[in-house]
Amino acid sequence: MSCDYVALANSGVQQLKPYQAGKPIEELERELGISNIIKLASNENPLGPSPKAIAAIQQEIAELTRYPDSNGHQLKQAICQSFDLDLAQITLGNGSNDLLELITRTFLNPACEAVYSEFAFVVYPLVVQAVGAKSVVAPAKDFGHNLQAISEAISEKTRLIFIANPNNPTGTVITNDELCAFLDSLPANILVVLDEAYSEYAMDAAMPNGLALVKRYPNLIVTRTFSKAYGLAALRVGFSVSNPAITDLLNRVRQPFNVNSFAMAAAVACLNDTDYLAHTVALNAQGMQQLTKGIQQMGLGYIPSKANFITIDMGEEALPIYQKLLHEGVIVRPLGVYNLPNHLRVTIGTESENTRFLLALKKVIQC
Amino acid sequence: MSCDYVALANSGVQQLKPYQAGKPIEELERELGISNIIKLASNENPLGPSPKAIAAIQQEIAELTRYPDSNGHQLKQAICQSFDLDLAQITLGNGSNDLLELITRTFLNPACEAVYSEFAFVVYPLVVQAVGAKSVVAPAKDFGHNLQAISEAISEKTRLIFIANPNNPTGTVITNDELCAFLDSLPANILVVLDEAYSEYAMDAAMPNGLALVKRYPNLIVTRTFSKAYGLAALRVGFSVSNPAITDLLNRVRQPFNVNSFAMAAAVACLNDTDYLAHTVALNAQGMQQLTKGIQQMGLGYIPSKANFITIDMGEEALPIYQKLLHEGVIVRPLGVYNLPNHLRVTIGTESENTRFLLALKKVIQC
Repeated sequence: MSCDYVALANSGVQQLKPYQAGKPIEELERELGISNIIKLASNENPLGPSPKAIAAIQQEIAELTRYPDSNGHQLKQAICQSFDLDLAQITLGNGSNDLLELITRTFLNPACEAVYSEFAFVVYPLVVQAVGAKSVVAPAKDFGHNLQAISEAISEKTRLIFIANPNNPTGTVITNDELCAFLDSLPANILVVLDEAYSEYAMDAAMPNGLALVKRYPNLIVTRTFSKAYGLAALRVGFSVSNPAITDLLNRVRQPFNVNSFAMAAAVACLNDTDYLAHTVALNAQGMQQLTKGIQQMGLGYIPSKANFITIDMGEEALPIYQKLLHEGVIVRPLGVYNLPNHLRVTIGTESENTRFLLALKKVIQC
Repeated sequence: MSCDYVALANSGVQQLKPYQAGKPIEELERELGISNIIKLASNENPLGPSPKAIAAIQQEIAELTRYPDSNGHQLKQAICQSFDLDLAQITLGNGSNDLLELITRTFLNPACEAVYSEFAFVVYPLVVQAVGAKSVVAPAKDFGHNLQAISEAISEKTRLIFIANPNNPTGTVITNDELCAFLDSLPANILVVLDEAYSEYAMDAAMPNGLALVKRYPNLIVTRTFSKAYGLAALRVGFSVSNPAITDLLNRVRQPFNVNSFAMAAAVACLNDTDYLAHTVALNAQGMQQLTKGIQQMGLGYIPSKANFITIDMGEEALPIYQKLLHEGVIVRPLGVYNLPNHLRVTIGTESENTRFLLALKKVIQC
């Protein structure tokens, strides 16, 4: 008895390649037998956990054997209070990745197209491919979103457009005026997913606040995460904001217990820990200055970034440099998968991590 | 600008109704303003958390800002050691619900059919509906799986068969001989999902151990959970075991960080806490005796169960009894959604919880 199980799978799945995560510290320890490793590869918060999040987690331990609240009532209420939203707009996700996937599974099928930009977050092609829909890639402009090119990529089959603002892995942004002009130009039956995973780092007057735009644009779905500025990557929690009709659809597809109890409790605590968020953003701004100065001093180029990472142009193939940095105990992110073979993406760390990265990079490129 | 977003959704999603979870204690507190509530509605472990799981969670807190290992290396290794399996057979899930969904998303599409039994776990129709495939329901026999009827329900379009053993919400089982005869009769291109969420409670010589059967049957996918006997429902973690070709496909579709770090660490600890598992199973056996005796004394019927719950035939519409029990501070599960309107499913609790349930039930049916 035998069977080709790949051939039995859905066509989109047959061509799917899994996401490559940043190398975990433990894995590098195992591979090279070194210790004292720093990881600047996954845009994690270098500040360590919020004390309020830790206290909330301690409270949850007694309820370990109990299922989470499948409606996420308390977290949804806290989100509504923090951002002036209605419960009927909120969908909770197991990280914002879960929401990106829920949106594609709700609205895309093999007859549809999704549009996103060159150099956009790699999860977009993956979730589109998984449902067998077609990806259409619009050319970038200065490594960032070119909304004109995205408009031109729209066809009769386009159902979804993904826009990350700031974008990962480039850190580029579009302004509120640019975004609104683009949204004004679209018909209501083309959905726009505005991925604001890094928005907390880029809160200036010209930037859009997607959450406030949802009431104006019924076809806009905004995703946010607690994995970056809120420091909860380990627990997996994010949310989307959309008009109630779309929210209802997403919640039909959502697994009933997709977000664990610890994540929800910690997220509520983080929303109330405004000091932690302010400290995070300030540390990031300092670290961005430190890194850009150091990079300039080495004569390297970089993509100006509003996020918690910076993407450096090595002027040569970056993978060997990435590998040499591993031997120095420094994990960053090569961007071959983004078709940026000469670039390395580096997360802004603490001051000492940034210093260590700059010293390691200097050593490695001088070899 | 307006649009019918329901009409824009995929056809399967348009007809999807979300899962109804057991009522959370907090919700009942809010609704009725009562306290001292017991919940016997979600087949949770009444023993409280494993001390080893708590210790593992405490260890994870320092790493809260870091992403989980997307490969789940340590948990997969621990599973392989505990159950004599290979890494290439394991897929980790955000609870076993996630695995049931991954399997349908990998193999089912609107041209396919999935077969399951009458009174089978309600998540099967939901995950099949979400991808727009067709559900074919085989009639049950004595509230349990009738494998002959399932065989007869197979058509040329059948790609997947779901079998829960023990079944939820009936607690019925099929034996190893029955299962193997059924698997022997199937072609290799019809996949069988054997859902063993409750198998730890039903380890006797006649019962199949699905994990050991996967090497013999390449079309068999077994799912297990840490939410029941291992007491980790709050954190969401389960796994599937399948042949490596199928495992590779499931891991392509799997979200890279679908299982959180706390869940993985706690699951490793639970696999090493054999005392906790033994205590859980012994407490359940005692509680099952206590409840069946009490039910018989009230002259009520029940479906003989090998799981950690028992489904009672109230001999009349059960929803009013469920509601009266809520006012007594006792949450159980009505089964109208399973087309069992006269039955209530009751989780085996601690001795005092079982006593309290029996007293409340006696009071309520005598009113």
